[in-house]
Amino acid sequence: MSEEKENIQFQLTEELVEQVEQLIEVQNDKELHKLLDEFHYADVAEILDELNLEEAIYVIKLLDSETTSDILMEMDEDNREKVLKNLSAKEIAEEIEELDTDDAADIISELSEERQLAVIAHIEDEEHKAEITELLAYDEDTAGGLMAKELVKVYETWTVAGCLRRIRGQAKEVTRVHSIYVVDKKEKLIGRLSLKDLIVAKSEQKIADIYITSVDSVNVNDDAEDVAKVMLKYDLEAIPVVDDNQKLLGRITIDDIVDVMKEEAEKDYQLAAGITSGVEADDSIWELTKARLPWLLIGMFGGLGAASIINGFSDAMVKFPVLLIFIPLIQATAGNVGVQSSAIVVQGLANGTISGKILSRLLKEFLLGLVNGLAIAAIVLVISHFAFHTTYYESLTICVALITVIIMAALIGTFIPIFLDKRGIDAAVATGPFITTSNDVFGIFIYFLIAKLILGF
Amino acid sequence: MSEEKENIQFQLTEELVEQVEQLIEVQNDKELHKLLDEFHYADVAEILDELNLEEAIYVIKLLDSETTSDILMEMDEDNREKVLKNLSAKEIAEEIEELDTDDAADIISELSEERQLAVIAHIEDEEHKAEITELLAYDEDTAGGLMAKELVKVYETWTVAGCLRRIRGQAKEVTRVHSIYVVDKKEKLIGRLSLKDLIVAKSEQKIADIYITSVDSVNVNDDAEDVAKVMLKYDLEAIPVVDDNQKLLGRITIDDIVDVMKEEAEKDYQLAAGITSGVEADDSIWELTKARLPWLLIGMFGGLGAASIINGFSDAMVKFPVLLIFIPLIQATAGNVGVQSSAIVVQGLANGTISGKILSRLLKEFLLGLVNGLAIAAIVLVISHFAFHTTYYESLTICVALITVIIMAALIGTFIPIFLDKRGIDAAVATGPFITTSNDVFGIFIYFLIAKLILGF
Repeated sequence: MSEEKENIQFQLTEELVEQVEQLIEVQNDKELHKLLDEFHYADVAEILDELNLEEAIYVIKLLDSETTSDILMEMDEDNREKVLKNLSAKEIAEEIEELDTDDAADIISELSEERQLAVIAHIEDEEHKAEITELLAYDEDTAGGLMAKELVKVYETWTVAGCLRRIRGQAKEVTRVHSIYVVDKKEKLIGRLSLKDLIVAKSEQKIADIYITSVDSVNVNDDAEDVAKVMLKYDLEAIPVVDDNQKLLGRITIDDIVDVMKEEAEKDYQLAAGITSGVEADDSIWELTKARLPWLLIGMFGGLGAASIINGFSDAMVKFPVLLIFIPLIQATAGNVGVQSSAIVVQGLANGTISGKILSRLLKEFLLGLVNGLAIAAIVLVISHFAFHTTYYESLTICVALITVIIMAALIGTFIPIFLDKRGIDAAVATGPFITTSNDVFGIFIYFLIAKLILGF
Repeated sequence: MSEEKENIQFQLTEELVEQVEQLIEVQNDKELHKLLDEFHYADVAEILDELNLEEAIYVIKLLDSETTSDILMEMDEDNREKVLKNLSAKEIAEEIEELDTDDAADIISELSEERQLAVIAHIEDEEHKAEITELLAYDEDTAGGLMAKELVKVYETWTVAGCLRRIRGQAKEVTRVHSIYVVDKKEKLIGRLSLKDLIVAKSEQKIADIYITSVDSVNVNDDAEDVAKVMLKYDLEAIPVVDDNQKLLGRITIDDIVDVMKEEAEKDYQLAAGITSGVEADDSIWELTKARLPWLLIGMFGGLGAASIINGFSDAMVKFPVLLIFIPLIQATAGNVGVQSSAIVVQGLANGTISGKILSRLLKEFLLGLVNGLAIAAIVLVISHFAFHTTYYESLTICVALITVIIMAALIGTFIPIFLDKRGIDAAVATGPFITTSNDVFGIFIYFLIAKLILGF
């Protein structure tokens, strides 16, 4: 039996892609079917992402809509958009019929408004149509935008046996039964049950006697990120969504939350690296420029600002030219310290490990900056003296400036994210180039100011 | 009924913490019980994280081990460690008895080796003890380190009715039944079933007739990150873990994977910000210095390297002093571009959206650098001329240098992570200060080299 062992790690090889391309070219549908049917839909999506548009459409039209709907969901968003543009409203509607309401609504919302109406008009299942239309009305960053209408719901008045009988019907529509939600006559959510509880219970018992009254829920208008936080904190695999009257509207499952988390983490990472909006390595040069140039321009203006500061201290340049060669050191250190401090604060804010105590945080960063500053200044003192033959006062200037700049950068890097967070602005924008640039300019200014004080030019 | 609506968003207020502290001080156990019993264990853990050690221990000893075991799991790791140091081996064993095997093993592994043995010796449930001991043997970054022994397992020879009967027994131990795993006589994993399938099936059917033969599994020695990738890609909420002979050993659930993902994202974010090892805002100054100083030292040596380069071009400083005021601009731009490029590549590698085509990626970055470089150079050209009165050749030097530096920084930022990845090194280390520093030094060198070529000093 051991040769049956499945290799879970699907490897997307160039040979495989070429094989698929060749089968498409000779239109060997039978072999193509046989080959692709072996793979999980997520793997087929990976293959399609490597094909050109005509080839991808060929495969989508070849396979059954039951499979292709899942494949489309897993494909790269840009590629899916192109494929959908080449399918008729009726063809898209056939894919939609196979999807859960949340995925269906996600796909439809990617279409133009005109096509949305055309596709919805072609959906034959009236209930599915009504549910998708309802979901389309919610903002995508809210609980309503994440939830699916598929869920298993029982009334408190049912018996366990009756319940199991009816669940058999409802459960067929639901891919995974996480929880069974208990509602009263008015469809208000009043509790929950697990399939396990139902199986363990006696068949003549009433649901009202066995259900668990404590049930977490989120409001349909809650922010998607808040829903994610709640589900992660309480280790929930699904959470019911209710309206203001506690009426059960849908449920959100952990896989949707994992996607929210991933997007959040990627967005924060990109912001820290000075890239706006969710770009990917495969996006066009134009898209990438739009995401990258704005931050480079901020850095450029910072650089020009630093240029005017140095220009303003032109006396120093003439009298103490050796000071100029340490500009990169001052600037790099200010930037690095600022990024470190801000990253720790941004992460602490996201985790909730930083509570309001801004003063104690600043004090801690001050001490930390002092320790790091003294260590670095000591090394620089030795090296600048021996390698660059700085005088006593020049060395003193460089070291005092380094320590001051490190402390200031740590304080700025700590203060700005906390300040933004308190103002309700996403603190993650305050890392990366933003902090680097402001610290660059500020650091150079402090450097020359200290030079003026110590050397007196 | 609407006043029953639960407020899912627990708010940790200073008043609440003070209230708990006061109740502890006057030893009002009854009120304390009443107050804390209202909250979810994850919320109580948040409260305990705010108390001092004696207070936290007081609460842990007051509440039942059924609750406190969950509270301990949710507490901050450092705080938990301190609390555990103050509990006897017997007390810890009582907490352990209440936990699932994976959580139990995680907690025990945080203890010293000597205490581990003492705690294990105090576990009364022999099966639980054996399972925990087995789990402790696996590396924490492998599937074995993530899995729990709790799962629902049926033999292919059983009938549906017999199965449901026996599952009632097994399921009581398992918090959530995701999948029922089907094994043959030799305990080899041969398929799966959902509770739903079992409920929908007729009671006299054999498991062998209804089970699903396609079942994903991971090997007990697989890397935790690979397990996470597989589960996310295939949208799995649980995955069985097998040994080399396909024998069923345990299962991993999505909540453990979410933790792996979160840790990964935080680690990458910290690496990009120049912080080694998983520190938190609340760690000691010594811990934070250990995590931050190494990268600052790298930046320092880069800065000193830049100083020698400028020193080496001292002729230029005398003849064309205006060039020096643009050093911060060149340096900041080189650093920013490098971080952007490397961040996109690191993310692409993590997502699998970057395949092997290193040459086409470099070409794309070259074009992107050219576009961004031309845009920035055009603005700098105008500003340097009017604001800093640069001569024609000086302006030309600055602009050519900017374009070259941007292109080089983009290429270096792209090449280094891909190169490291191909060598099997985590590409995430190559972002942040590492890229910034190398680009700083390189950028300044290119700047002066181009100045020498154009201005000929």
